[in-house]
Amino acid sequence: MGYRIEKDFLGEKQIPDDVYYGVQTLRGKENFLITNMPVSKEPNFVKAFGYVKKAAAMANRDLGVLDPKIAEAIISACDRIIAGEMLDQFVTDFIQGGAGTSVNMNANEVIANLALESLGHKKGEYQYVNPNDHVNFGQSTNDVYPTAFHLGLILRLESYMESLGRLRDAFFAKAKEFENVLKMGRTHLQDAVPMSLGQEFHGWGTTVGEEVHRIAEVRQMLQGVNLGATAIGTTVTAAPGYPELAVKYLSELTGIEFTLAEDLIEATSDTGDYVLLSGVIKHTSVKLTKICNDIRMLASGPRCGFGEINLPQLQPGSSIMPGKVNPVIPEVVNQTGFLVIGLDLTVSLAASAGQLQLNVMEPVITFALFASIMTMQRAVESLRVNCIEGITANADRTRDMVLNSLGIVTVLKPSLGYKQCAEIAREGFLTEKSLHEIVVNERKLLTQEKWDEVFSFDNLISPKFEQ
Amino acid sequence: MGYRIEKDFLGEKQIPDDVYYGVQTLRGKENFLITNMPVSKEPNFVKAFGYVKKAAAMANRDLGVLDPKIAEAIISACDRIIAGEMLDQFVTDFIQGGAGTSVNMNANEVIANLALESLGHKKGEYQYVNPNDHVNFGQSTNDVYPTAFHLGLILRLESYMESLGRLRDAFFAKAKEFENVLKMGRTHLQDAVPMSLGQEFHGWGTTVGEEVHRIAEVRQMLQGVNLGATAIGTTVTAAPGYPELAVKYLSELTGIEFTLAEDLIEATSDTGDYVLLSGVIKHTSVKLTKICNDIRMLASGPRCGFGEINLPQLQPGSSIMPGKVNPVIPEVVNQTGFLVIGLDLTVSLAASAGQLQLNVMEPVITFALFASIMTMQRAVESLRVNCIEGITANADRTRDMVLNSLGIVTVLKPSLGYKQCAEIAREGFLTEKSLHEIVVNERKLLTQEKWDEVFSFDNLISPKFEQ
Amino acid sequence: MGYRIEKDFLGEKQIPDDVYYGVQTLRGKENFLITNMPVSKEPNFVKAFGYVKKAAAMANRDLGVLDPKIAEAIISACDRIIAGEMLDQFVTDFIQGGAGTSVNMNANEVIANLALESLGHKKGEYQYVNPNDHVNFGQSTNDVYPTAFHLGLILRLESYMESLGRLRDAFFAKAKEFENVLKMGRTHLQDAVPMSLGQEFHGWGTTVGEEVHRIAEVRQMLQGVNLGATAIGTTVTAAPGYPELAVKYLSELTGIEFTLAEDLIEATSDTGDYVLLSGVIKHTSVKLTKICNDIRMLASGPRCGFGEINLPQLQPGSSIMPGKVNPVIPEVVNQTGFLVIGLDLTVSLAASAGQLQLNVMEPVITFALFASIMTMQRAVESLRVNCIEGITANADRTRDMVLNSLGIVTVLKPSLGYKQCAEIAREGFLTEKSLHEIVVNERKLLTQEKWDEVFSFDNLISPKFEQ
Amino acid sequence: MGYRIEKDFLGEKQIPDDVYYGVQTLRGKENFLITNMPVSKEPNFVKAFGYVKKAAAMANRDLGVLDPKIAEAIISACDRIIAGEMLDQFVTDFIQGGAGTSVNMNANEVIANLALESLGHKKGEYQYVNPNDHVNFGQSTNDVYPTAFHLGLILRLESYMESLGRLRDAFFAKAKEFENVLKMGRTHLQDAVPMSLGQEFHGWGTTVGEEVHRIAEVRQMLQGVNLGATAIGTTVTAAPGYPELAVKYLSELTGIEFTLAEDLIEATSDTGDYVLLSGVIKHTSVKLTKICNDIRMLASGPRCGFGEINLPQLQPGSSIMPGKVNPVIPEVVNQTGFLVIGLDLTVSLAASAGQLQLNVMEPVITFALFASIMTMQRAVESLRVNCIEGITANADRTRDMVLNSLGIVTVLKPSLGYKQCAEIAREGFLTEKSLHEIVVNERKLLTQEKWDEVFSFDNLISPKFEQ
Repeated sequence: MGYRIEKDFLGEKQIPDDVYYGVQTLRGKENFLITNMPVSKEPNFVKAFGYVKKAAAMANRDLGVLDPKIAEAIISACDRIIAGEMLDQFVTDFIQGGAGTSVNMNANEVIANLALESLGHKKGEYQYVNPNDHVNFGQSTNDVYPTAFHLGLILRLESYMESLGRLRDAFFAKAKEFENVLKMGRTHLQDAVPMSLGQEFHGWGTTVGEEVHRIAEVRQMLQGVNLGATAIGTTVTAAPGYPELAVKYLSELTGIEFTLAEDLIEATSDTGDYVLLSGVIKHTSVKLTKICNDIRMLASGPRCGFGEINLPQLQPGSSIMPGKVNPVIPEVVNQTGFLVIGLDLTVSLAASAGQLQLNVMEPVITFALFASIMTMQRAVESLRVNCIEGITANADRTRDMVLNSLGIVTVLKPSLGYKQCAEIAREGFLTEKSLHEIVVNERKLLTQEKWDEVFSFDNLISPKFEQ
Repeated sequence: MGYRIEKDFLGEKQIPDDVYYGVQTLRGKENFLITNMPVSKEPNFVKAFGYVKKAAAMANRDLGVLDPKIAEAIISACDRIIAGEMLDQFVTDFIQGGAGTSVNMNANEVIANLALESLGHKKGEYQYVNPNDHVNFGQSTNDVYPTAFHLGLILRLESYMESLGRLRDAFFAKAKEFENVLKMGRTHLQDAVPMSLGQEFHGWGTTVGEEVHRIAEVRQMLQGVNLGATAIGTTVTAAPGYPELAVKYLSELTGIEFTLAEDLIEATSDTGDYVLLSGVIKHTSVKLTKICNDIRMLASGPRCGFGEINLPQLQPGSSIMPGKVNPVIPEVVNQTGFLVIGLDLTVSLAASAGQLQLNVMEPVITFALFASIMTMQRAVESLRVNCIEGITANADRTRDMVLNSLGIVTVLKPSLGYKQCAEIAREGFLTEKSLHEIVVNERKLLTQEKWDEVFSFDNLISPKFEQ
Repeated sequence: MGYRIEKDFLGEKQIPDDVYYGVQTLRGKENFLITNMPVSKEPNFVKAFGYVKKAAAMANRDLGVLDPKIAEAIISACDRIIAGEMLDQFVTDFIQGGAGTSVNMNANEVIANLALESLGHKKGEYQYVNPNDHVNFGQSTNDVYPTAFHLGLILRLESYMESLGRLRDAFFAKAKEFENVLKMGRTHLQDAVPMSLGQEFHGWGTTVGEEVHRIAEVRQMLQGVNLGATAIGTTVTAAPGYPELAVKYLSELTGIEFTLAEDLIEATSDTGDYVLLSGVIKHTSVKLTKICNDIRMLASGPRCGFGEINLPQLQPGSSIMPGKVNPVIPEVVNQTGFLVIGLDLTVSLAASAGQLQLNVMEPVITFALFASIMTMQRAVESLRVNCIEGITANADRTRDMVLNSLGIVTVLKPSLGYKQCAEIAREGFLTEKSLHEIVVNERKLLTQEKWDEVFSFDNLISPKFEQ
Repeated sequence: MGYRIEKDFLGEKQIPDDVYYGVQTLRGKENFLITNMPVSKEPNFVKAFGYVKKAAAMANRDLGVLDPKIAEAIISACDRIIAGEMLDQFVTDFIQGGAGTSVNMNANEVIANLALESLGHKKGEYQYVNPNDHVNFGQSTNDVYPTAFHLGLILRLESYMESLGRLRDAFFAKAKEFENVLKMGRTHLQDAVPMSLGQEFHGWGTTVGEEVHRIAEVRQMLQGVNLGATAIGTTVTAAPGYPELAVKYLSELTGIEFTLAEDLIEATSDTGDYVLLSGVIKHTSVKLTKICNDIRMLASGPRCGFGEINLPQLQPGSSIMPGKVNPVIPEVVNQTGFLVIGLDLTVSLAASAGQLQLNVMEPVITFALFASIMTMQRAVESLRVNCIEGITANADRTRDMVLNSLGIVTVLKPSLGYKQCAEIAREGFLTEKSLHEIVVNERKLLTQEKWDEVFSFDNLISPKFEQ
């Protein structure tokens, strides 16, 4: 296979004939081998570059600073990137020095070479369409990269929110299914007061559902961009009116309402929005960690644990213990949580390392955020499909536990008082007698009829107040 | 000094005559010596208990489940707590087992004993006003504690937001003062393109100002409470209508619009709001970390550093190097940032450790959040008063640096093209010549007149576009 | 009360007559109000300054660069600090800008004024004994502060290691007590194979015991110091031979073998040892977190949980649920763990913020490390005294659970094979039959005699291998 | 392509004819899609399974519990895995539920099928060589997985330590090269006292070199294993003498001296060693973060920064600013540091989530640790080759800065006293005069001859003490 020669101000390099990226991309590829994961692993990020470069070309064309013929060639090239055709040409490692210059140049060079071919030129004949002077006209990595990152995140979050919504609905469906399953509520892992298993699942649904709203709020923040601010926020080299027009085109092309940041100097160096977004992603993982811990505990047993629910059996649980089946899906979601909390720290650290007019650590934020969200999304899907939807309840066991417990004495507190109830509970604890025995048979504080009323399912789940 | 005897179901204890707390508070005090900081260190938290207990008593009185005379005595007692009179009676360590039961009982006992005295009884005569049966009527630590915590946070945040607002304004005042100070903008710590020092300070003001909005958003979330949900969210032992009425009274008393959570089961075990709040507090500290790093760098020198600004001199900087003065305030704000980021992790960890119907780790969240916010507030005040307001600029030096730099070649890029500009910059870098010499004298690419126009202050700060 | 006037190169200040610190300490006190905790909260740290300043004075005296009369007065003053007499004079906030200069000057000024009085002068007459020129002779905050910090840590760790040792022994004592309590071992929270409760406690003892060794290893690292390196490690202003002699005296005075770092430049800016120490402290807290989680789970119930062990009852567990007792001590240890993990992050962040010849963030490291260790020590003591030593076992219940379980089929695996055992276990799981019924009565795979042998206590705890 | 049918106790599945893994691996592959990275991404981990399974087969053969013919077939199969031939058959995602059962079964199935073919059977004819009953004989995931993980880490660390050693040597080589380059030492980013650039590089070499020792210490801990402890540490199903013999064989095969843990119950659930190892990896990254921050600062400029050193120019630094070259390699190392600190948190969280007899979160620890070390290794190699080895110094500039500074007044402190020196420095600061002018010309405190002596290179780097 043949090579073409490309050069930049540091010298010449051979570029394989068939690739669309050029000398600067190749330098970046050689300089950065850190995660060993190219940016193409998040197609939304590459797609976003297509949109941003297209909006820029349209704005520059309208403002008369970019030859319309060249502009159209660039726009067509961007369309192919948006369509996902050129993924394999985005070879830059997620973690890169230079604050994203390598991936921006990767986009510029791929677009330039696509445009060149569509105009009948050869790849590398940059005198006709130049990656810097034409494709990147009026742009800097420092405005283009964050704008594409914002857009890539918005696209990814759309899909992630749908996954979360489905998980919420799965919890609610189970809540309905288990609404009549009486069980012991527990605080401090100690028997407390009764509830229904449906209430427990409903709580999980509620808490996951809230996350969709939180994410939507932060996603909206990401619609503020610094496109057109160029190097440090002063819009140097951009044509007058360019920022507003480019943002307008970006909104039209994507159907997402972008706005230009008010303080462009601030917007160019600040990475605070990522900290907030990462915080919300972590927030969801903290909630799922709690839920999965609960599920594993409620499914503990089968005979020496809580044994309240059964999880779908997905694989033999042990290479040594025959018949053992483990809660592998909640376990894997727990592990994902630990990863996401770690990556959230990475985001905070990188965000605090901004200096003066730029935060050059943005690429590791990109990596951490996309990795977090994509991993969470896979975990959320797996949790729903492989676990939640198949959970069954051991209703007899959970009901028996309630009726044999001491915690239900609380139901009697308004009528008997804290002190007397405490004595009854303590007697039960010390003698292992049941409450029924002490209250009805021995102390005759309640008739059997009253007992039945007080300890009916309805009254246990939604206790009627009495004094 | 004398003692009275109090007992609970675990036995008797001697209580010093003059204290208003009782046996359960004393047990908590003895059991928990972890931070060695009593909850009274955050007066807003104690005050919040006063409000919550008062609202509860009013609701229970209206609903006819609490004797009006007892209710009024409780209400008066709460007023004294709200007024800050009983701070020294709140002796429970911030970090406690039991999910806050000890501090709730601390409040219940102090209120009961105050009420007893106002009714002409002696402290400890709980047959007349009982901490559990009267003061805590229809309540559980699991709804009262989080509600008081929410309210305490809201009060603290009010004051914190004012501090942040003043810091924002101080930055804006300096932005105005320095609006004509030309300086080099830097990306990657490398000379980039010119800007004004005012723009830099304005960016800092903007970014701090945004935080006030973020905090206000999260503070609003805290207005959702689970008051009346009792033990696990089923409202067991609460009178019908109590939750709504108690919340209504709490809103009236505080002037803050509280609402009852929709899913009380979820609200009772979830601590996610604290994670979000902590995330925002951390977010601010991440921003201040960046700003203080910048300030320390811009003030580096006096002769071997950037030397762009001078900080107020507060104390001799060295025990050995005579005349040295150090940027001690930004340093202390940086350190506060590290503490706050650590405590944010503590909050996330504790939040993820909820189990089943409760998160018993809430007290360490209380500690970490109040410590974070109070520490941040002190740092923010100090940064403004002891540093920002006294900063001066070395305008001659910063202007000379700009004019001697190579980075300003970017201003010529639209007219000369990326490639020619790169060659000029490289020649300057290799030969140490000034741009002026290369461009005007040697290559004669610009006339002196044109040069003066292009490199005027106005054009450097807000470059006129030309091609 | 009267005032004296002191001045430094920034001007004059009034100092209350009765305090031993001077103008620079007062500036520091006014400038830094961050944690609101003075360094005197860790008496070992103040004591350590006494030792370091004494060693320095002795070395400078021997080398002839400090007037012997002044030296002796300084040495006597140091002795009073070592004896703990002047704690209330150490008023500097733990978190301070200036890399510890304020606390170093606090020591220098207190010592100077004590020395002045002992020589018959008045406080503040620094022409006779000067805090900078005499007490701090040949020293810089940058070598004195870290050396005192190392020594303070070593003293604190001695005491902490003893606490850990006692906890280990308490676990071992319980291991002996419970060595014949048969219980189900669990993996994935699922019933696995039998073990004794003693083995479980022994494991906890082992894992805590290992920590004593880990701490001892890191403590040894702390014996490397940079005393005498002065400002940046070049020993500028120190007399020839001073570093070695000062280190020798420090070793003699404390009985701890200190050594001088080989690369003093590196030693002066590096704070890596603190990261390692903090990591080990965190390590212990991670282990205790796991142990306390286990204890809370094994104690869950009393009737609807695992119910294997009972914890001492320390306080009523609920303001609403009569008779409820909660595992408050393990809960508080868990919370301490979250705090310590957060503070460990603080240490790492501060350590990574060193710049050029110094890490000015060392004071927040000091705060975080002392807070971590002291908090952990309190938690460890409380865990032992208030919880572990009083644990009892429900031996009947744990034995019954083993014999009713399916997990014990693993004991039959070598003789019956994985596949047949898996079928038996699955049948038991689906039909709720006991293993005994399936294996002995129905499938007649074992005689009753053989069954008794295989499922004896000894064979369950230490299974005899057979094929 | 054809399929074969395999079954386990959950049912049948189709397995492509040409793959060596079986039904349980396939279930794991389908159940876990989290990182999308198979364990084969760390060849050392797969290799380690080969060694462990081989040692187990040899021990079982010697003990007479495994048919010698089957044992030899297994051993040959392991040799092929050790040789790296079967990497593509290890398809299990790094993050998996089941505590590693899927990857253990992946190994067991690949080995069984290789053994079957070598014995003339077909893949899947497990009646002859069974993954559970033969390959996994006397083993559990709970001892095999951690042992293989330990071994995999040891192998990886060997190579990593070599990379670190080379980086250390590169720093030392530059230290030699720059030993006569005089520069200003800085504390608090403020000019302090002079030093040589060689001393600075030497400090970096020292600090990196220390890491090699730290890693070696922790690596030694990893030589303690629980091989043979099986499910929970009681050695159930293992033949008598198996643990010791298996460990002996493992040592012989690898040339690494493994030892059996003393408390096998503890060793089976504890993951503390990983926390310590991760802490040390983080420690190195904290140090590199500091070093790279310093390098970027020293290289800041070229004209408006410190400008002390020049980094190799690797790629055009900006898509907009012509001629700009950025410190991309230190930037990428900084970003790696943020990732590693995040992953260290992941390890701590996962380690603290162990429950009862096992920590099921070990797979995410595996992922995080291998990812950390491999990423660090790439960063370390890149830092050395692409940056450190090519650094040059601007010796004239750094010397001029020293001689124009005020910080050098410290050199005069022993002779002129702190107070007079402070006055001189302050005069210099306020008047912008040089020290020479004030000290020699105006105040005539030193003769020119004396001045030359005091401010000679040698005296500035290693100041001669005088009073």
